Amino acid sequence: MATVKLWSDAEAEADPRVSAVFADIRATRGSDFINNFWRGLAHDAGLLERTWTTLKTVMGPGTLDPLTKELVYIAVSIANGCPYCIHSHTAAARTKGLTAAQHGEFLAVVGMANQTNALVNGLQIPIDSAFRVEDTP
Amino acid sequence: MATVKLWSDAEAEADPRVSAVFADIRATRGSDFINNFWRGLAHDAGLLERTWTTLKTVMGPGTLDPLTKELVYIAVSIANGCPYCIHSHTAAARTKGLTAAQHGEFLAVVGMANQTNALVNGLQIPIDSAFRVEDTP
Amino acid sequence: MATVKLWSDAEAEADPRVSAVFADIRATRGSDFINNFWRGLAHDAGLLERTWTTLKTVMGPGTLDPLTKELVYIAVSIANGCPYCIHSHTAAARTKGLTAAQHGEFLAVVGMANQTNALVNGLQIPIDSAFRVEDTP
Amino acid sequence: MATVKLWSDAEAEADPRVSAVFADIRATRGSDFINNFWRGLAHDAGLLERTWTTLKTVMGPGTLDPLTKELVYIAVSIANGCPYCIHSHTAAARTKGLTAAQHGEFLAVVGMANQTNALVNGLQIPIDSAFRVEDTP
Amino acid sequence: MATVKLWSDAEAEADPRVSAVFADIRATRGSDFINNFWRGLAHDAGLLERTWTTLKTVMGPGTLDPLTKELVYIAVSIANGCPYCIHSHTAAARTKGLTAAQHGEFLAVVGMANQTNALVNGLQIPIDSAFRVEDTP
Amino acid sequence: MATVKLWSDAEAEADPRVSAVFADIRATRGSDFINNFWRGLAHDAGLLERTWTTLKTVMGPGTLDPLTKELVYIAVSIANGCPYCIHSHTAAARTKGLTAAQHGEFLAVVGMANQTNALVNGLQIPIDSAFRVEDTP
Repeated sequence: MATVKLWSDAEAEADPRVSAVFADIRATRGSDFINNFWRGLAHDAGLLERTWTTLKTVMGPGTLDPLTKELVYIAVSIANGCPYCIHSHTAAARTKGLTAAQHGEFLAVVGMANQTNALVNGLQIPIDSAFRVEDTP
Repeated sequence: MATVKLWSDAEAEADPRVSAVFADIRATRGSDFINNFWRGLAHDAGLLERTWTTLKTVMGPGTLDPLTKELVYIAVSIANGCPYCIHSHTAAARTKGLTAAQHGEFLAVVGMANQTNALVNGLQIPIDSAFRVEDTP
Repeated sequence: MATVKLWSDAEAEADPRVSAVFADIRATRGSDFINNFWRGLAHDAGLLERTWTTLKTVMGPGTLDPLTKELVYIAVSIANGCPYCIHSHTAAARTKGLTAAQHGEFLAVVGMANQTNALVNGLQIPIDSAFRVEDTP
Repeated sequence: MATVKLWSDAEAEADPRVSAVFADIRATRGSDFINNFWRGLAHDAGLLERTWTTLKTVMGPGTLDPLTKELVYIAVSIANGCPYCIHSHTAAARTKGLTAAQHGEFLAVVGMANQTNALVNGLQIPIDSAFRVEDTP
Repeated sequence: MATVKLWSDAEAEADPRVSAVFADIRATRGSDFINNFWRGLAHDAGLLERTWTTLKTVMGPGTLDPLTKELVYIAVSIANGCPYCIHSHTAAARTKGLTAAQHGEFLAVVGMANQTNALVNGLQIPIDSAFRVEDTP
Repeated sequence: MATVKLWSDAEAEADPRVSAVFADIRATRGSDFINNFWRGLAHDAGLLERTWTTLKTVMGPGTLDPLTKELVYIAVSIANGCPYCIHSHTAAARTKGLTAAQHGEFLAVVGMANQTNALVNGLQIPIDSAFRVEDTP
């Protein structure tokens, strides 16, 4: 259950700003399916618009391939413990070509990163000067 | 500062198990540099051996390209708040070809994922049945 | 399901310390309803007493208004990924006057904070001297 | 140290998009000071523009008072362990009127939320039906 | 639901590497029961083998008693918000002798640690020199 | 640097409530040393009193041995990324007898827990019915 009511298509159609976002999601994805995340965000048209616009830009064409971006998205969602996000982006990654072998290898990297993050934090390892970037303006 | 003393090369050489791991790190990377993480783990030869062996396997050749793996590693390290890990793996990603444009795009994806994770958690969005995988044995 | 059995009213009444806390919760809130959190804590009367006493003090009258405190509570619960806490404190915030517009605006702030936290961590931004407070004793 | 070089004013002025954002930050805040976060983001003009535009909207006038928004921002930053964010938003909260008494009370709420989040997670408390919202579309 | 199908015993038997791990889990634990975690990992025989081998070593006999190790495991799982891990390791801790009184006391420590972590992060307390270890190699 | 000024002994002595807590810390620990955490909390006498009183109770004699409690405390602090807490409680654990071998073994358990937490979250493993406790009141 959500902390808000999810908007139905009928409710979305009655609000021009929400309706426009839903239409753009459908056009962009070439599918009639609107997942629950957007139906929950519909309560705040501004938040819905900003979130969709930014997501579309950030996950759209760029210098990283689409599957890599989905894997980065899932990695963050696992670390943050967001079941919905893990499910939706794992499904998206499969649509973008994720194989079973890649999924296993990806999970191994995520598991390893979480393990060594903990070891480094537990040992409070100081940063090697070799990793330093000149950063002063 | 660390919570343990970091091992010098001289100390590592005096312990055959630690010495063997340090030698394999150098051979695998083709560099004499041993970063502080391994010098901190050297206190527990078993933990050092297991961590290095697994890391070598997990980050070695597979079905995902090396840069993608580094980006996944950094994404997890950002979510977990591990400064050392972020610095060392950002340096490693640059060695593996990360460009400034890709770095910016990667950070945008990580930022977006953290934002939508929070929105989903705040709204407690229920998982769409479309994302479900048949999972019962 | 919980990792412990939740205490019924009958079980609580049989233990004078638990019974006293349940009575004070009811009196303080002006409601007969005891939510599951307290029924789970009832296994350890000392922990139940300390948690309730501190919560009553911390969330009671002070220099911040009650709704602000609930929003801070929900923000932490979202970042920590605690579904129960998000539901119970969102319900409490509504009781204290949270409107739908405020809820959307609050979620936008939480989402923005999580996003910029990730960007700052990814970039490892050094703290500006302008933010420093004289802190030495 | 950062994982990227922070942009100086001279570097920012040489890039019209970055320069425009820096000018808007200065105009909006009525101060010449540009904190390091924006100097780090300047490497990716698109990310800089989107982040500033959204932050300006989200933290701008709305239905929640400015101090409440800063406290929510700090609460998230504490839970995520972002030292830079904690320092910069605590400084901002003071500018918006945060008193020492309010700061202590705020920290007590944050501490309490983190404590009860852990207790609830450890006990895996099921959500009371009283907290449920009708959510099906 | 999982993001992958969980392997049945019949499926595991058809893969010699998975079958060997399942047999070792059964022999080590003296029980026919294979919990869902291993059935999910079975998709990647290498990840399954490495995870089981390391877990068996790490949680096996050493210098810390078995119950202490389980409590440390649960504490991490609570902080990371992993419901499955909390349930499975709380069950394991009970098998290793955890009493109801110890469970309550453990949760009080976990709650306290989360609370003071938040207070320390919020205040950004500098590390006392008394806690420093000589760490330079 | 902290977000507040740390209180000197002279400042603490001028406030009877803070002074009483500092005196009790010294008496309880049999040492004149007051670490920075308490000097930061001193700004809010109520928060200082509640935190010290609860800590003294929770970390005091009970059904778990003192070293186990410190290890649980450090495990949480590692997962939450609190450098100060990791340093102060690792120092405290050493005072309570933590050996180098135990420290290594402890870190291996923490690392393993973080790794499997991530694998479980990534796979979204459903909870085995064998782990369920009857929980309805």
